[in-house]
Amino acid sequence: MTEEVIAAEKMGEGLKEISISEFFEKNRHLLGFDNPQKALITVVKEAVDNSLDACEEARILPDIKVSLKELNENIMRVIVEDNGPGIMKEHIPNVFGKLLYGSKFHRLRQSRGQQGIGISAAVLYSQLTTGKPINIISRISPKRPAHEYTLRIDTLKNAPEVLADAVVEDAKFEHGTKIEMEIEGKYIRSKHSPLEYLSQCAIMNPFAKITFKEPDGTKTLYERAVNELPKPPIEIKPHPKGIELGILIRMLKKTSARGLSGFLSNDFSRVSPASAEEICKKAKVDPKMKPADVTRDDADRILRAMQAANLMAPPTNCLSPVGEEAIMAGLKKEIKAEFYAANSRTPTVYRGYPFQIEAGIAYGGEIPVEGNAKVIRFANRVPLLYELSACATTQAVEEVNWKRYGLDQSGGKGIPKGPVAIVVHMVSVWVPFTSESKEAIASYPEIIDEIKLAVQECGRQLGRYLSGKRRAAEREGKMRAIEKYAPEIAAALAELTDEKVSDITKLINNLATKKFHTVNKDLMEDAPGEGEEAAAAEEAPAETEESEEK
Amino acid sequence: MTEEVIAAEKMGEGLKEISISEFFEKNRHLLGFDNPQKALITVVKEAVDNSLDACEEARILPDIKVSLKELNENIMRVIVEDNGPGIMKEHIPNVFGKLLYGSKFHRLRQSRGQQGIGISAAVLYSQLTTGKPINIISRISPKRPAHEYTLRIDTLKNAPEVLADAVVEDAKFEHGTKIEMEIEGKYIRSKHSPLEYLSQCAIMNPFAKITFKEPDGTKTLYERAVNELPKPPIEIKPHPKGIELGILIRMLKKTSARGLSGFLSNDFSRVSPASAEEICKKAKVDPKMKPADVTRDDADRILRAMQAANLMAPPTNCLSPVGEEAIMAGLKKEIKAEFYAANSRTPTVYRGYPFQIEAGIAYGGEIPVEGNAKVIRFANRVPLLYELSACATTQAVEEVNWKRYGLDQSGGKGIPKGPVAIVVHMVSVWVPFTSESKEAIASYPEIIDEIKLAVQECGRQLGRYLSGKRRAAEREGKMRAIEKYAPEIAAALAELTDEKVSDITKLINNLATKKFHTVNKDLMEDAPGEGEEAAAAEEAPAETEESEEK
Repeated sequence: MTEEVIAAEKMGEGLKEISISEFFEKNRHLLGFDNPQKALITVVKEAVDNSLDACEEARILPDIKVSLKELNENIMRVIVEDNGPGIMKEHIPNVFGKLLYGSKFHRLRQSRGQQGIGISAAVLYSQLTTGKPINIISRISPKRPAHEYTLRIDTLKNAPEVLADAVVEDAKFEHGTKIEMEIEGKYIRSKHSPLEYLSQCAIMNPFAKITFKEPDGTKTLYERAVNELPKPPIEIKPHPKGIELGILIRMLKKTSARGLSGFLSNDFSRVSPASAEEICKKAKVDPKMKPADVTRDDADRILRAMQAANLMAPPTNCLSPVGEEAIMAGLKKEIKAEFYAANSRTPTVYRGYPFQIEAGIAYGGEIPVEGNAKVIRFANRVPLLYELSACATTQAVEEVNWKRYGLDQSGGKGIPKGPVAIVVHMVSVWVPFTSESKEAIASYPEIIDEIKLAVQECGRQLGRYLSGKRRAAEREGKMRAIEKYAPEIAAALAELTDEKVSDITKLINNLATKKFHTVNKDLMEDAPGEGEEAAAAEEAPAETEESEEK
Repeated sequence: MTEEVIAAEKMGEGLKEISISEFFEKNRHLLGFDNPQKALITVVKEAVDNSLDACEEARILPDIKVSLKELNENIMRVIVEDNGPGIMKEHIPNVFGKLLYGSKFHRLRQSRGQQGIGISAAVLYSQLTTGKPINIISRISPKRPAHEYTLRIDTLKNAPEVLADAVVEDAKFEHGTKIEMEIEGKYIRSKHSPLEYLSQCAIMNPFAKITFKEPDGTKTLYERAVNELPKPPIEIKPHPKGIELGILIRMLKKTSARGLSGFLSNDFSRVSPASAEEICKKAKVDPKMKPADVTRDDADRILRAMQAANLMAPPTNCLSPVGEEAIMAGLKKEIKAEFYAANSRTPTVYRGYPFQIEAGIAYGGEIPVEGNAKVIRFANRVPLLYELSACATTQAVEEVNWKRYGLDQSGGKGIPKGPVAIVVHMVSVWVPFTSESKEAIASYPEIIDEIKLAVQECGRQLGRYLSGKRRAAEREGKMRAIEKYAPEIAAALAELTDEKVSDITKLINNLATKKFHTVNKDLMEDAPGEGEEAAAAEEAPAETEESEEK
């Protein structure tokens, strides 16, 4: 046998399958478990996100309790309990003990989770670092008992391994899920902490009540600020604009539709029977042909025809934005500033996925004057704490010309400087994160453009406020000059006009004061809390400015 | 049934398994397929990396041909052919048609690939965007025929689907692999292009011959610069310092060792039978106990004892660095500059994985003076083109105080400005990338520290060169002043001393010239190409400086 054959044989021997659990075990930083501090936040985040999603989906006002306890140096017990709908007994093992398992991946609807990785990754991390299984108690109705599971993940099989399974008759809650796990974790009260995560969470989820117990026993209660859940987002079908050939071919194989035109109008969003017929005609295929019989070349032509067709944009009731009012309220609650503005863009589309950008800005007050503006980021109401520099949000904020709005910015590029906080929120049926840890949004041009437009609108409102403030300061300076010189002018005028000095002085002061008040009144309309009205009143040449920026 | 039960049931219905192929299909930006331009580079990169790995492993000097052809607008045919060992027929379908399959994931040895995702991800992208299967011809010996496969991935099963399989009697190559696929791709000759990728590749792989044919027919040949392969890296066993409890527990279950102390000394690196006995004693477990009988609590104590034990650092012959000389040569070949320096650190460890950082710097010459320094990044000899800002490399370079070395840096932080190129190379048995696309290195503190130290050493050499250059310029100014005023001084001296004016002038000039030459000679020793010697001659108080920087 030649040397090469031996090489190929030897190299062949090492080939084997890699389980997804093993892959993420070795790459745990991809899931947000880089270090004990970040890992603790990630575990809390995955559990709380799931609780919020479940409550929202079941239309229950969330009441979530998070509790941390330090058992040993760097060993933490994490308990998260919700009043959600609970999880049916038979589903519990897979939901917690299998990576890439869930209900959110295959549907097009806005939710916090989307990958089917989060909570099972936390379980994986827990057993990797402490070797302990996790404990889950879930109850789906006050009329039924709760179920308790103790389980871990068999990483070679990526499957749950149930160690104990019991009926709990005396569960303290009527419905909901309580999970408990031990992890290697470190509690630090820094800008990256579970506390920061939960307080940002409270801003964007004002309908949730969250109770947090820190390892030292300190309790923080985030009270419910509104008693209504947001409008439930609707699940949508894929839109032809976002489809790729490979996906179309798979959909053709899997569809239950009997004919091609039926497939097009049933399985896609915004394709009417008439457009379906037209697409088939353009693609030169029989509208009645069986979807399974469509060849690759047919599919290629169908795809081109679909994408060239004049179809409506996808419906946007699959999105559930927070709204300008709620963003303003959240900002005011969290940040003491002198000026606030918010902007919710209309929904639009990237790769066929509907999305919407919301932005907010706060200026002055207690925001530190030194250093860069603080950028606060959210995706589907979830705060993003890490990977700031890798995020589309940051890129968009850096590309805005902030000098135009009266802020410092070195070299006309980059994060502006000064007492400013900028909030960006993306809602979408599918947020393109840069990694499985879901900490940064990938830089799709359509997304960056929308973020820029939203942030620029807030910037314009801030700019008007700042220039009004500057003008008022200038005018006040002039007023003082008038007051100072009025007596002399009055004396001179009195000599020329034969009027009394006191009368002329009074007249001058009245004139000036009236003017001053008018100016001040103008200014007041741009004052904190009334940004929207001011914006509505003053119609800026927005479009021109926006296109310049691009 | 209560409303909650209905909610739980309804939510349970949607639960299902997500295939890894589907996951990456939807998240294709995680794999580097964000857009047609990047996707083209990624496909070329995955294929070339595999070819280089296979050749190196089989000890064959690589000869790789890459050819691109535009078939339609944004549709590219990519052909990559190597003279490697070939792949045995029975392994071909899984290697190309299954994600998370390979030989590199489970072993601790430096290689370009490590995840078992790369090339199958390219196949996935190809079929997603063009619907076409891919074609592979591989031959393992001149004495045997080649085999040809046409296949695609069944994404629901994450398994290869072979469409055609044939014996090729008249293959044009004696051994090697040729792959051909059609993808949605865009060829742009920018700083992010296959050309840039291959030319950086040539810097760090001077033993490879690479031929590249661009879509317009332009051919570029990267000739072999050295005729010897780097020393083959050795596979190592895991080191106790990098082990986590979950992994120890799994290893205990899987080991073929009969007793605990045998397991410790056989399955780990740097654990001698004596240390194994000692670890067992400290952990209060019987060294003869069966590994399978070890409980979680035993394992916990064993792990602590292992990590507290005084063991040698892992062997570093698993690493194959490029070396200072090769980095200097690569820099000189690629970048016309006036000064070069390089530094290879000694190997060290993060999470038990050996790694080593190498750095280089080039200054002046044809490097543009305007703007920031260019940071050129490599991991296991593979150029990293994207995600600059998310990379540990960038963070480390930004944290260095470059002003100390005579470079501009705004605010004493950030990438330095001016005509500088900085090269950083990390070699490791496991590079922690920030995503599956392997474009940026995760920010482990140990890695950042090493990068800083390597880059600082280059910075010090540059600093000496620049300050020498500045001193020389100052002295030359003084020389000119002396030359200018020498005649007058000479005249005055002549009057005072009764010597001849011409003799005194000569004396002054000689003195000055001698001094000047000495200075110039000092300077010459710091000149291009001799950085290392200068560094060795001049013992800078390196440690102090380094610890200050931390």
